[in-house]
Amino acid sequence: MESKVILLDQDGVVADFERGFLACWQERFPNRPHIALDQRTTFYPRDQYPQEFRDDIAQLVAEEGFYLNLPPIEGAVIGVNQMIESGHNVFICTSPLLAYIYCVPEKYSWVERYFGVEMVKNIIVAKDKTLIHGDFLVDDRPEISGVTHATWEHIVFDQPFNRHVLNRRIQWDNWQSILTQPTE
Amino acid sequence: MESKVILLDQDGVVADFERGFLACWQERFPNRPHIALDQRTTFYPRDQYPQEFRDDIAQLVAEEGFYLNLPPIEGAVIGVNQMIESGHNVFICTSPLLAYIYCVPEKYSWVERYFGVEMVKNIIVAKDKTLIHGDFLVDDRPEISGVTHATWEHIVFDQPFNRHVLNRRIQWDNWQSILTQPTE
Repeated sequence: MESKVILLDQDGVVADFERGFLACWQERFPNRPHIALDQRTTFYPRDQYPQEFRDDIAQLVAEEGFYLNLPPIEGAVIGVNQMIESGHNVFICTSPLLAYIYCVPEKYSWVERYFGVEMVKNIIVAKDKTLIHGDFLVDDRPEISGVTHATWEHIVFDQPFNRHVLNRRIQWDNWQSILTQPTE
Repeated sequence: MESKVILLDQDGVVADFERGFLACWQERFPNRPHIALDQRTTFYPRDQYPQEFRDDIAQLVAEEGFYLNLPPIEGAVIGVNQMIESGHNVFICTSPLLAYIYCVPEKYSWVERYFGVEMVKNIIVAKDKTLIHGDFLVDDRPEISGVTHATWEHIVFDQPFNRHVLNRRIQWDNWQSILTQPTE
């Protein structure tokens, strides 16, 4: 496979936002209901959790330490290193919270922690990912739009809440075979 | 003029890095030599200041408050608002220090302070700007390269250290006439 520009979304592709959120939620609010990981049906937890918890969810993810302490997605660290060793140009392409004060620098620290300082140079923070050039954007968000027509093919990173999308989809144990399939 | 995607570099185009740096330098090291703004001939101060000061320069710009306290470039706040009011899609496209811990969130806070919270959504942080799509990239860096061939035309924002570059160049008092000139 020739060298490609691969844009990797951070949350839900390399950082396990869902697992991290659930752990924080259960620790903070042990007496409230929670939604099991395999039962999540919306991209944002706030859209599936009872509406009365909306502000608490927003506050939880904006707090110091939330993004820094997300666990990696299983297989992501090995998988990203495999991509790089295969000669691809790999970038972390992430859309931050508008509550950026902890979120943005902690996303950088997280990348440095798990992928090393060289990878920090390959972080792209942008709300509108259609403006970022790549051959592939690996992202768990079901639909992605913006001000322009993107150059990348959207490869869906498999998550329970995006199974309705018909794009090519990957997990970290099959990315090589999926990405090398010829495009239809 | 039809609506364009305009990428604006932050330091040296909207935020006055040079003025901010000189003020900090003179305050911190009043007995050391300094280089007047109109005498600056290199993109990075570290390449023109005596080499013995290299580490001090790196430390100064990485400190808490340095990026947050940069003054705006004269005319930038009015100019950016004119661009937006003219119907252009305006993004702040900035390459951060590898010492990101204060630099990155303070770049966000700076944009919020001078352009408001809506503009925060239009920040793109990327070391390699060739990956960012735009019709124009307004940037004071003389040469810009990266992993791909950029879609934008590089408009040079006029600074003393980039006068050798032959690209179209603007300042905040003439951007409208320069950007509406037909491309050669």
